[in-house]
Amino acid sequence: MFSHVYEHRVRFRECDPMQVVYHTHYIDYFEAARTEALREMGLPYKALQDSGVIMPVIDLGVRYRRSAYYDDLLAITSIIKEMPRVRIRIDYEVRRVDEPDLLVTGHVTLCFFDAERQRPVPAPDSVVATLAPFFDSVS
Amino acid sequence: MFSHVYEHRVRFRECDPMQVVYHTHYIDYFEAARTEALREMGLPYKALQDSGVIMPVIDLGVRYRRSAYYDDLLAITSIIKEMPRVRIRIDYEVRRVDEPDLLVTGHVTLCFFDAERQRPVPAPDSVVATLAPFFDSVS
Amino acid sequence: MFSHVYEHRVRFRECDPMQVVYHTHYIDYFEAARTEALREMGLPYKALQDSGVIMPVIDLGVRYRRSAYYDDLLAITSIIKEMPRVRIRIDYEVRRVDEPDLLVTGHVTLCFFDAERQRPVPAPDSVVATLAPFFDSVS
Amino acid sequence: MFSHVYEHRVRFRECDPMQVVYHTHYIDYFEAARTEALREMGLPYKALQDSGVIMPVIDLGVRYRRSAYYDDLLAITSIIKEMPRVRIRIDYEVRRVDEPDLLVTGHVTLCFFDAERQRPVPAPDSVVATLAPFFDSVS
Repeated sequence: MFSHVYEHRVRFRECDPMQVVYHTHYIDYFEAARTEALREMGLPYKALQDSGVIMPVIDLGVRYRRSAYYDDLLAITSIIKEMPRVRIRIDYEVRRVDEPDLLVTGHVTLCFFDAERQRPVPAPDSVVATLAPFFDSVS
Repeated sequence: MFSHVYEHRVRFRECDPMQVVYHTHYIDYFEAARTEALREMGLPYKALQDSGVIMPVIDLGVRYRRSAYYDDLLAITSIIKEMPRVRIRIDYEVRRVDEPDLLVTGHVTLCFFDAERQRPVPAPDSVVATLAPFFDSVS
Repeated sequence: MFSHVYEHRVRFRECDPMQVVYHTHYIDYFEAARTEALREMGLPYKALQDSGVIMPVIDLGVRYRRSAYYDDLLAITSIIKEMPRVRIRIDYEVRRVDEPDLLVTGHVTLCFFDAERQRPVPAPDSVVATLAPFFDSVS
Repeated sequence: MFSHVYEHRVRFRECDPMQVVYHTHYIDYFEAARTEALREMGLPYKALQDSGVIMPVIDLGVRYRRSAYYDDLLAITSIIKEMPRVRIRIDYEVRRVDEPDLLVTGHVTLCFFDAERQRPVPAPDSVVATLAPFFDSVS
């Protein structure tokens, strides 16, 4: 299992007339959080993309439990439970920094996709080699 | 069951470097689609909100099947299968106008929420009266 | 001179905790408005782009006079005063539909840009031929 | 004069099919930059807002000189040249971190506005007291 925490300060433009973060912005937070999580694992998404493999989102789910407010400092935790093979699933937990309450949980599934041939592919060897050390059961 | 089709022209700003609609924008399309669906049912969200009942999103899920491109004219179908009581679940199907292929499917669940008391409430009587005629099994 | 009116319904996600449209969204409205204005002139931006000429924004200005609110139906008027040669300047006026008061005014300047050679170019002949009839002084 | 540098990592969702940051996102960067600039001056916008004074944007201008790309780390410099009295004008310069070339320049003008009475007001005394030390000519 791998986990990583990304911090984000809630911006005024992200809040709606109910005074809370509008629900779609959490999915933008997820993107920023996983980019930094993958970078920490040694897998900058830009390098992957430059090698011709992109990672489109194929599935996502979000559950909204409590609201976040303007100027809150949020901690978005990205959790990768299983070694990615043909897909990578990332689970998310959003809290205020230093507070235990879950505000939002969710997950995003991405696949590896050959940009030129326009088809899904298994994780490239270089990706497997980079990610494997973070997961127990990988031979 | 109630269904309603909302059309949206894909904007340049909604497309990403893969040349496709970035995944979060579909959730914005869902918002526009349900606002117009509810308006057609006789339930303008703004009137509901002015009466003190707001409808926060509590849950959403999206499955991405095929890509949409810049300048595509999309048909976003909102489907309400069951008479809303304490929650309202809306399912979505996104296609290109006049094409059968599903591009994206998803759902959003909203609850009725008393803005002043800050707690969930059942659908107000006026809402029930407005929506009931669209559903078979409602007495 | 050429002018064109595009209508837009203000969405909940576009409004901020002050209950008004957040200022950056008007610039998104401008994009949608000019896309439809150019389409009506016979110049779909997508066709131009497919021919290898893109139109990056090089300059913009906006003056905010009055607020717009959730669910307002806005009329965004795009005005092209002069025949575009190497740049195209579009002025904008935003009002509520059927109301005289100006809410927001602005302008955006775009240039014609050869995507492959990565340099500004004059308006392609086909663009000049399409746009010229809308302007008096063009020979 | 007061200046402050805010860093921002360009996100995938902020880039368009031309592979560059879409022009409206810079205005969002400006918001984040000035929030942090004012916080450093001792004037958290949230505290101001809680006191009943809001700061709507009344005017903005942006000039786009060079493109920024996915995953670039940007330095957005906020510059306040004059002590704010009834308005506050903030100039912006966007560069890549540690690079001298200007990518984008702009300015945003905000006014002080009494939220309850819905009218512009001079800068509150507490704001003047907080900001004055940063400007030479203030008595």
